[in-house]
Amino acid sequence: MIQVAVFGYGTVGSGVVEVIDRNNSIVSDNSGDKVNVKYILDLRDFPGDPNESKIVHDVDVILNDDEVSIICETMGGVGAAYKFTKAALEKGKSVCSSNKELVAKHGAELIQVAKAHGCAYLFEASVGGGIPVLRTITTALTAERITRIAGILNGTTNFILTKMEQDGADFADTLKIAQDLGYAEKDPTADIEGHDTARKISILSDIMSGHFIDSDAVQTEGITKITSSDITLAAKAGYSIKLLGLASRYEDDSVSTMVAPFLVAKSHPIAGVNDVFNAVFVTGNMLGETMYYGKGAGKLATASAVVADVIDAARKGSSCMYKGWDETLAPAASLADAEYRFFVRCASDDADAVKALFAGVQESVTEGSETGFITSKMTQSGFDASAAKAAAMILGSVRVYE
Amino acid sequence: MIQVAVFGYGTVGSGVVEVIDRNNSIVSDNSGDKVNVKYILDLRDFPGDPNESKIVHDVDVILNDDEVSIICETMGGVGAAYKFTKAALEKGKSVCSSNKELVAKHGAELIQVAKAHGCAYLFEASVGGGIPVLRTITTALTAERITRIAGILNGTTNFILTKMEQDGADFADTLKIAQDLGYAEKDPTADIEGHDTARKISILSDIMSGHFIDSDAVQTEGITKITSSDITLAAKAGYSIKLLGLASRYEDDSVSTMVAPFLVAKSHPIAGVNDVFNAVFVTGNMLGETMYYGKGAGKLATASAVVADVIDAARKGSSCMYKGWDETLAPAASLADAEYRFFVRCASDDADAVKALFAGVQESVTEGSETGFITSKMTQSGFDASAAKAAAMILGSVRVYE
Repeated sequence: MIQVAVFGYGTVGSGVVEVIDRNNSIVSDNSGDKVNVKYILDLRDFPGDPNESKIVHDVDVILNDDEVSIICETMGGVGAAYKFTKAALEKGKSVCSSNKELVAKHGAELIQVAKAHGCAYLFEASVGGGIPVLRTITTALTAERITRIAGILNGTTNFILTKMEQDGADFADTLKIAQDLGYAEKDPTADIEGHDTARKISILSDIMSGHFIDSDAVQTEGITKITSSDITLAAKAGYSIKLLGLASRYEDDSVSTMVAPFLVAKSHPIAGVNDVFNAVFVTGNMLGETMYYGKGAGKLATASAVVADVIDAARKGSSCMYKGWDETLAPAASLADAEYRFFVRCASDDADAVKALFAGVQESVTEGSETGFITSKMTQSGFDASAAKAAAMILGSVRVYE
Repeated sequence: MIQVAVFGYGTVGSGVVEVIDRNNSIVSDNSGDKVNVKYILDLRDFPGDPNESKIVHDVDVILNDDEVSIICETMGGVGAAYKFTKAALEKGKSVCSSNKELVAKHGAELIQVAKAHGCAYLFEASVGGGIPVLRTITTALTAERITRIAGILNGTTNFILTKMEQDGADFADTLKIAQDLGYAEKDPTADIEGHDTARKISILSDIMSGHFIDSDAVQTEGITKITSSDITLAAKAGYSIKLLGLASRYEDDSVSTMVAPFLVAKSHPIAGVNDVFNAVFVTGNMLGETMYYGKGAGKLATASAVVADVIDAARKGSSCMYKGWDETLAPAASLADAEYRFFVRCASDDADAVKALFAGVQESVTEGSETGFITSKMTQSGFDASAAKAAAMILGSVRVYE
């Protein structure tokens, strides 16, 4: 019998219990022995819940029970979750986590603690929900030098941008709809300002580079400045606007990591990732581009990824561990030197004056009284210098992903 | 030192040597020891080739060299490749294969031979080229009951269908272009009649069901009957036409496997898989739909998947093996009872008469003198019975994927 404890009986935690229950024969078969949830740690009581008898309030009951070999940490946060995770690993119990904040902040250390105690710290569910992207990068793309990872990693913002494009609606109105549907929280800051995406792309960048990326220091632009005019003009030029986490690794092993809205050509598969779905594009030096697509959130999809980690931990112990990354910062590539094409929006009356600042304007579309055009490829610093000259005339600008 | 031999110095085989050479530090690091290609087995000589000195013509030189622990089988075919693979596994050497024909026919047996001799038989590259779909299904989607796998698994036919849609061109003309570009062979039968896709979806269905699917017995329809009218009318109704391999698993564990062109809604991500790219959609009972996308063929992409297998074999020996499938046939679900909506094309003058045969026509579009419409959901046998009554009036019909 493989005895499991779940830390946190919220959406994902209850999903973990449900997946282990409903797919028990598959989960047990793949784990090599019967899998059972013995405890659920939560501060609350759940009177009448079918798992009421498994609820405990004291973490030590679990930590001191030698029968429990695997923990699912679905609490979130970096306070108690960090303390409990570390304590569990130090007891030799593997921990399978959906907690992106904790992994982004303390992943390097916790992987080392797990290694030192012969158990595993796994966190497939922390990035891309149900999409098995961490396991794919670390166990399948092993013959590759990974040079770029680009992801739609936040369902809330992708829903908003999709809806704005489909309905021609404003950001504020669409955010309201997303809140009414339960896709956005009352305080939507972490989603719409890009902080959630920053944590996830940092974890991917940690794995790609082998070094720590501080998600708080990642250049992060959200979607609050994207207007329906940006989206309409971009669509007319053949592009969708998507919020991307983007991690690039250069020949000299330097890394840049950023979060920003990008124009994506409609012919590119990433433009077809709509609504609350997530997708991760991974580029390898031999393989070229591959994409992994699915539900980036949601109770059962995220829980399925946690349980896949449980199976790996049960079956392979510490040998299934991600290689991890060290706590030193990755050498940073200059974002100022990075080259993009830029989409620029201005009043049609100003278009000639604004275009004159950028050599080689490639595409230009007009809708109503506004014009959008795309520059030729230029450095970020070059764009910023030109744009500063016309700051009062430029109504919006977005980088082009390619 | 991990000594590897490559069987067959063709496109994929030479790619394997190139990936191991160019990414040697990554490949060796992930394998746990330096990886070196010691021999290349081929009937031909390669005078002047940088690897000329590694060429051997006698397989026994390799089989009897105890230093060689891993074989990459990129010969193709089921004759010598079968014999040599079995002999290598019996010597305890792991075999990493790109040979879909051999896996589809003898995979179950070869996996058993590998297990009996403590080595591994791996074949990530046999399905979807560089897309890591077998490893993902077997190592990442382990908490799932997989209920359906749908794939665009053949680059040649996907290129032809994409080009026909983009250019409004005929099948025959587009096939000629594909041949001129080297995307289609002089004898394109295996691609355009769906046999290549049948082998790949059979392997996926083997893994999903745990039983043998005879690829020669899979109901297989190619794309030769698809006309530019089908594509134009489908596009007008909001669909693309894609050749899909489709494997479905039902509650009672029965399985149906087929290859056929399908209408795919343009809003579905699989419709955005264009040109020679491949993609595999996997549906799990908890996770819903996930998609894996990338280069389905090509020297380095396919070779990268073979080398990923080499790394797994080096690192984990027989423990990295797919669970495999037994040699008994999977219980077959009735294809006659399967339900679809159907797209039907006929002369506009006949449209009323033809529509009258199908209850609940949902969408109808006309272009020139032809009309296409989509039926409501009905069984295959029900459709066939109705269609037979109007056989002379029905110019074409295609199932709808949903």
